[in-house]
Amino acid sequence: MNIGIIGSGVSGLHLGLFLREHDIPVTMYAEKSAEQVAGGRLPNTVAHHHHTLERERALGVHHWDAGEYGYVCHHHCVVGTPAPAPLRFRGDFEEPSSIIDYRVYLPRLMVDYEERGGEIRIGAVAAEDLERLSGEHDLIVVAAGRDGIGAMFPRRADRSPYDKPQRRLSAGIYHGIAYSEPKGVGVHLSLGHGELLELPIFSREGFATALLFEAIPGGDLEVLADVRYDDDPHRFHAAVLEKVERHFPMLHERIDLGAFALQGPTDILQGALTPIVREDYLRLASGRYALAVGDAHCVVDPVNGQGANSASYSAWTIGEAILADYGFDERFCQRVAREREAFVLGVSDWTNMILNPQPHVVELIGAMSQNKALCDAYTENFNHPDRQWDALATPERTAAFIARHSAS
Amino acid sequence: MNIGIIGSGVSGLHLGLFLREHDIPVTMYAEKSAEQVAGGRLPNTVAHHHHTLERERALGVHHWDAGEYGYVCHHHCVVGTPAPAPLRFRGDFEEPSSIIDYRVYLPRLMVDYEERGGEIRIGAVAAEDLERLSGEHDLIVVAAGRDGIGAMFPRRADRSPYDKPQRRLSAGIYHGIAYSEPKGVGVHLSLGHGELLELPIFSREGFATALLFEAIPGGDLEVLADVRYDDDPHRFHAAVLEKVERHFPMLHERIDLGAFALQGPTDILQGALTPIVREDYLRLASGRYALAVGDAHCVVDPVNGQGANSASYSAWTIGEAILADYGFDERFCQRVAREREAFVLGVSDWTNMILNPQPHVVELIGAMSQNKALCDAYTENFNHPDRQWDALATPERTAAFIARHSAS
Repeated sequence: MNIGIIGSGVSGLHLGLFLREHDIPVTMYAEKSAEQVAGGRLPNTVAHHHHTLERERALGVHHWDAGEYGYVCHHHCVVGTPAPAPLRFRGDFEEPSSIIDYRVYLPRLMVDYEERGGEIRIGAVAAEDLERLSGEHDLIVVAAGRDGIGAMFPRRADRSPYDKPQRRLSAGIYHGIAYSEPKGVGVHLSLGHGELLELPIFSREGFATALLFEAIPGGDLEVLADVRYDDDPHRFHAAVLEKVERHFPMLHERIDLGAFALQGPTDILQGALTPIVREDYLRLASGRYALAVGDAHCVVDPVNGQGANSASYSAWTIGEAILADYGFDERFCQRVAREREAFVLGVSDWTNMILNPQPHVVELIGAMSQNKALCDAYTENFNHPDRQWDALATPERTAAFIARHSAS
Repeated sequence: MNIGIIGSGVSGLHLGLFLREHDIPVTMYAEKSAEQVAGGRLPNTVAHHHHTLERERALGVHHWDAGEYGYVCHHHCVVGTPAPAPLRFRGDFEEPSSIIDYRVYLPRLMVDYEERGGEIRIGAVAAEDLERLSGEHDLIVVAAGRDGIGAMFPRRADRSPYDKPQRRLSAGIYHGIAYSEPKGVGVHLSLGHGELLELPIFSREGFATALLFEAIPGGDLEVLADVRYDDDPHRFHAAVLEKVERHFPMLHERIDLGAFALQGPTDILQGALTPIVREDYLRLASGRYALAVGDAHCVVDPVNGQGANSASYSAWTIGEAILADYGFDERFCQRVAREREAFVLGVSDWTNMILNPQPHVVELIGAMSQNKALCDAYTENFNHPDRQWDALATPERTAAFIARHSAS
């Protein structure tokens, strides 16, 4: 048996490490070397929730103890409501989550993977290479991110409600922000303009804060997706601070204006993405199959911080199916699809809903501001996106969710 | 919340008891009272495998300790091969299974259910009653067996390969048969004529043996589905003994000819059934949903002894979904369908294959006769029908299954 993995992000590495734990030969096709990833531009700002950290522990790659590097809650702040002051409330996790700069995280796991006998081949893989690679492997897992080869998997219109980005993004790592107490992620919402996720990250230079601005197109925050640090750092900082002061008071009060600055010129990523769900698998001309995982399967907006967790969960599902099953035929692919469906589509449906929330979800957020048990349940469900979507899918379900967590 | 269960067989009772464990109001519509079931004709001959016994333990209704009442293996005997002598081989379970006469089992669980606050209403429920009952319950679970109201759920042609019975059946409880050593089920196969399952049962009169003849239409065993005990007990016994002597030597050698007899005139059931898979759920005119479970969802031939186990598994899945979820809408029904699919359809696909085995399955049985580890794996998979079907679905999968259990 030999498994080929195209891509070296979190899903590719978690699957590769899982397979090596079970002595299964794996070849990983990585676009960049560990050194290139470590020295590159900020690729994202990614939270790993408890279930993902548990998989890291099982693989022996939890190098950043969540008790030391992690955080324990979500601090919410909503401005722009009819209320006279911003709504501020907190939801606690049962176990900590953590955020490690992927330029620290991924290269370390690439080393782990190679030390355990995993093979890495560096270089781009194009769609036209897939048939040839399929001859070398019993199964190809496409974990190549949201661009390029992943596009071979057809879009599922039934699960892809958007045809363009719902947010314009600016993610950067900053100095000069004091952590909240208890240490948590700040979930800032400015109604009509967008969100700011304030993320306690462990970066290449140590502890810092990532700010991920999720600007609604046409809103007051959109400029942050356009203003270029490289053109004029002073103007860039001024623009960020102006928007933070106007929209995000729970962050502004913890900024040291004299120290506030982007960590470095490669610590900023601006752009936008269109959420999409693709088919789980493809039959190749060779008769073998290719499975999609991570962003090649399902791209979600980062507003809920779920993408990496969904990718890791999905990778694990594939790994367990490889161990248990007796072949890599269509039945195998259907099994993987069924086993990850509730989780991966829960992430996608929930995130798509949050981008343009229906009234019952707006009401839920209001109820959470008045009911800590409810907010804790919503927060803990960041580990259970299938359950989160169970609770959000219809007004009746959300009413039942609120009722369940409102009993004395 | 209030759940209505139509039917009082194993799936209805396991679900009802599960829900009462969690203080959920339940009304069960039973065609017969506990006394009527206890005094009636043999309804079936049903093995409960370890996973089903584990659910009984969790519910506190495991009244027949498997260590005392159960059995531990399958004794196989195949006649009619090119080999000079019958093939005889054994597969062991990791944990015991057991067979309790349902005229003992079901009435006792009906009492348990009522003692725990479950309501039972005695009387037949017809299809036209369903809409009215739906007004009284948040969810209707149809556990009413393979006739009558279950037929409201459309047949799934994609999973129902047969349009008529593949075996004609005679199930009876007999005295005068010594148990095998170790105590096990005898799986007797006479190529071209059919199977005999020799089942160590605990009956209304204590320990006895059920013989379930699975006669291929047109074969030498078919007479056993027609000969009537009530017409002439002597002729009936003579017919059974003649066929056992000719086709089933592993049983014949343990029969005490002087004591051999049907236990009593109601201890015999003859007939035939057509395997069928039906849709998981229906939307009623009320807007509420009805879920099918057990034989209302999926009828399998008894040749693998899987029907009750599948029904109980499915009932448990529904119970857990009721606890976890936030509504009884189509999403709820789809969740149940997804969560039981691999198991319930594994039972169905495996059993349908065994009735008319493809060459690779015949080869597997041959390999099992030479390889006890392989036969043990096949036997233990009576607890994991999803895995059994994983191993049988294609020739390539069966080859991989054999290879996995053939390594030194």
